Amino acid sequence: MMRERLYLFDTTLRDGQQTQGVQFSLSDKQQIAHALDALGVDYIEGGWPGANPTDSDFFAARPQTRATFTAFGMTKRAGRSAENDDVLAGVLNAGTPAVCLVGKSHDFHVTTALGISLPENVDNIRASIAHVVARGREAMLDAEHFFDGFKANPSYALDCLKAALGAGARWIVLCDTNGGTLPEEVGGITAEVIAAGIPGDRLGIHCHDDTGNAVANSLAAVLAGARQVQGTLNGLGERCGNANLTTIIPTLLLKEPFASRFETGITPQALAGLLKTSRMLDDILNRVPLRSAPYVGASAFAHKAGLHASAILKDPTTYEHIDPAVVGNERLIPMSNQAGQSNLRARLSSAGIEVASADPRLAQILDQIKQREDEGYAYDGAQASFELLARRALDQCPEFFEVKRYRVTVERRKNKHNEMVTLSEAVVVVKIGGEKVMSVSDSMDEGGSDRGPVNALAKALAKDLGPYQACIDDMKLVDFKVRITQGGTEAVTRVIIDSEDGQGRRWSTVGVSPNIVDASFEALLDAIQWKLIRDHVVPAE
Amino acid sequence: MMRERLYLFDTTLRDGQQTQGVQFSLSDKQQIAHALDALGVDYIEGGWPGANPTDSDFFAARPQTRATFTAFGMTKRAGRSAENDDVLAGVLNAGTPAVCLVGKSHDFHVTTALGISLPENVDNIRASIAHVVARGREAMLDAEHFFDGFKANPSYALDCLKAALGAGARWIVLCDTNGGTLPEEVGGITAEVIAAGIPGDRLGIHCHDDTGNAVANSLAAVLAGARQVQGTLNGLGERCGNANLTTIIPTLLLKEPFASRFETGITPQALAGLLKTSRMLDDILNRVPLRSAPYVGASAFAHKAGLHASAILKDPTTYEHIDPAVVGNERLIPMSNQAGQSNLRARLSSAGIEVASADPRLAQILDQIKQREDEGYAYDGAQASFELLARRALDQCPEFFEVKRYRVTVERRKNKHNEMVTLSEAVVVVKIGGEKVMSVSDSMDEGGSDRGPVNALAKALAKDLGPYQACIDDMKLVDFKVRITQGGTEAVTRVIIDSEDGQGRRWSTVGVSPNIVDASFEALLDAIQWKLIRDHVVPAE
Repeated sequence: MMRERLYLFDTTLRDGQQTQGVQFSLSDKQQIAHALDALGVDYIEGGWPGANPTDSDFFAARPQTRATFTAFGMTKRAGRSAENDDVLAGVLNAGTPAVCLVGKSHDFHVTTALGISLPENVDNIRASIAHVVARGREAMLDAEHFFDGFKANPSYALDCLKAALGAGARWIVLCDTNGGTLPEEVGGITAEVIAAGIPGDRLGIHCHDDTGNAVANSLAAVLAGARQVQGTLNGLGERCGNANLTTIIPTLLLKEPFASRFETGITPQALAGLLKTSRMLDDILNRVPLRSAPYVGASAFAHKAGLHASAILKDPTTYEHIDPAVVGNERLIPMSNQAGQSNLRARLSSAGIEVASADPRLAQILDQIKQREDEGYAYDGAQASFELLARRALDQCPEFFEVKRYRVTVERRKNKHNEMVTLSEAVVVVKIGGEKVMSVSDSMDEGGSDRGPVNALAKALAKDLGPYQACIDDMKLVDFKVRITQGGTEAVTRVIIDSEDGQGRRWSTVGVSPNIVDASFEALLDAIQWKLIRDHVVPAE
Repeated sequence: MMRERLYLFDTTLRDGQQTQGVQFSLSDKQQIAHALDALGVDYIEGGWPGANPTDSDFFAARPQTRATFTAFGMTKRAGRSAENDDVLAGVLNAGTPAVCLVGKSHDFHVTTALGISLPENVDNIRASIAHVVARGREAMLDAEHFFDGFKANPSYALDCLKAALGAGARWIVLCDTNGGTLPEEVGGITAEVIAAGIPGDRLGIHCHDDTGNAVANSLAAVLAGARQVQGTLNGLGERCGNANLTTIIPTLLLKEPFASRFETGITPQALAGLLKTSRMLDDILNRVPLRSAPYVGASAFAHKAGLHASAILKDPTTYEHIDPAVVGNERLIPMSNQAGQSNLRARLSSAGIEVASADPRLAQILDQIKQREDEGYAYDGAQASFELLARRALDQCPEFFEVKRYRVTVERRKNKHNEMVTLSEAVVVVKIGGEKVMSVSDSMDEGGSDRGPVNALAKALAKDLGPYQACIDDMKLVDFKVRITQGGTEAVTRVIIDSEDGQGRRWSTVGVSPNIVDASFEALLDAIQWKLIRDHVVPAE
């Protein structure tokens, strides 16, 4: 049976940026665009060129993608031609193969928000889309407030769509801008639009989650005939967020009637990377991943109820609607039981640490992990520290050196040019094989900026580790994540450090303390220790 | 027009407790039961009496509620009579007016998980329900895996329901236990069940959010004829959670076709307390409330896009699907690089800073915000720093004091008991009205733990601010958020500090620097400055 093509349009970089507290940097945007392209969406909406410096810079050096790169903008303003509208020109000048323009389709908004006549607005849509098409681009109309508009004045709302279609728009996107429309209504109105002569394979759907129905609304529109679905990774977006593509994609690929009827650009291999893509975005935003997220949440396949857990052991399909592995997730059964130990053994084995299944130290390691996670540690994102914890419990962790003391100072004062400047300085004393070594460092980078106390400490520590120096010389601190978290009853600081070496290895370590410098230092020490073990360095006598 | 009664059944205390990491205490359960009763749900499912000590204690001293208190249990086991099943006896002994028993309705589960014959399971359902009815209780059957069961073997699944109905069950609850069923299917199957002779006003719906459709599935079942909706506050529950009553309730009360067709036990006054009820549960669980939650999230009525904000000023209905006040929420217009001038004026006005719409300084402030956000600042979550930035541009920001220099030291070494300990110490020199003041502080908390360099700096700075001391004495640093971000081409640290004072005011400030101590100090200074301005303190001469 021929399957119909269903197109996925991602707007994480545009509508997703409307999330309160979200501010993508240029490199964030580049990283997300690459991940979206690897996932296999059809369109990547990159932002509004001309609206702010980051978006303009991003379009100026836009990544090469297989996906159709799309710029967002708005239909021309009344009283000028499309050719003379500077905002529209800014959008077209970004040079993307596709351009999506938001236009009003609700009569109330035309008169209230724009303050122009209803025919003027239709003209603006027609002329703007025609202009985009004349410039050789794929044109889309984002029909703002379409569902509310259709309910208020169906013939006017349809006139707006028809104007865009007549002017050559590839896609007409039905937007539930305020997010208040329910699934039955979205399905019904989409069917009416198709009955009124707008072909379903030219229709897109763009939903918001204000009633918790953005996913269901998108699915209802597809069942009614729409063939493009817009959304964002992790459901980012203004207010309650946009339709969550991280949820919609597996549903379209795995669930009937969608799986048999439609073809998308997402391969099973890409689907298996969905969880990683979701986590990458949370990492960029320094957000705690939502445990209960459908498909990709850490709890999505966690079986807490005793009756469920025992049935799962007989047959996982008893309490799982899909195999967690197909979206890159895994089953989670409370650590206290048998399954916890076999999980642990598998994880240790993948780090080259073999433990017999009967070894009582497995239970001790599980207890330690649980206790330390209670104190604020997190081992999911710090595999190297997890390995060290296990090696210590298994007596497979040599002591390479001992830190006797350290001191770090940050001072801010005026320099001789009467400018306020900051200086950081660290002193570290370590004992290596009976010998004391004292090192000192500041934290100036090549540009003369002070990078702070943790940088000074890292530099002092790595300056002279005697016999280990050759091994750690190619180590580099590449990322540093800080989170305030709850440890027992007190707030503590959790620091996760990512390190890299000359062989391209990258590893993560964790430290926890009420004092951010201490927490960082603990993670730094783990990073060095892990590298020494992995490079089979022999401890000094 | 007569409206039909639709019943709400809350299972926060039973199914909600299956959430990973959730463990209610006795007093938690009592507090939540009172809140649910005040909200006006019809049924409160309190737990499984006999399954664990907390649930047993809770039922032993169950609160007096207007809502029908319900105990959960399972149908009797095969090979014994209902009268002789000790698990069932434990449930009935709790003495609740209603009892809900889970029973299998999927043939595969009967044979795989229970390991009994299909007729035996039907008999267990019939006998158990009859026993509950004979004891004078309202009986309900929780038909586990009903939708999967109906798809696999519709006549067997219906036989299970009919056995319960014939035995006198008030309600038959259709459960999508694994959460994998989509709305169209839930609606269709519910309609088939009614067509097969189970009246809609005896049918309940119980959904899970594994495909992000728990709310839509519940609504679809109601449209198909079911008249009881089960769910939990904030969507707590195993895996991805249960249907979220905090979302479903306002939809049923405010949205068509539900609002006109149905009557529930929730009054408009109770609905206005919905946000508080939701926050109370997060407080009990020590969870950060989900900003993007429909209706009750802090971002649910936040308008970040500049075009939206300017329309909202003309008429809130332009971008709001309901009035936020009806669920106890409020509108929020945060700052961001997407903001327009009207957004800016509205935000300034709500902070008591009035600027004429023609004032050219509005554009300057916007430019500054854009530039600083490019450097790594974020004003969405730091309203107080935003106000200070605007006041500086408008010459409405007095200089209260000048920081001449500071120095902070963190030292880790052995103490006299040969234990490694960390000590932080800060010295701050400020000039207040011509006079220099030097202060020093460590960062020990009451428990003798070192809280780190930022804490030492904050304490030193707040120790002696001369004439301002009385104003800042009730200030407290309550939260501290750190993220590494991109500022220009270099990684910088962004610190957001939340402060609180004796009047219960809470405000947020931001600082950015490659040096975390500098970034924190900048945010601290803003926090003090904001407080001095808000308290109308006069600068020292």
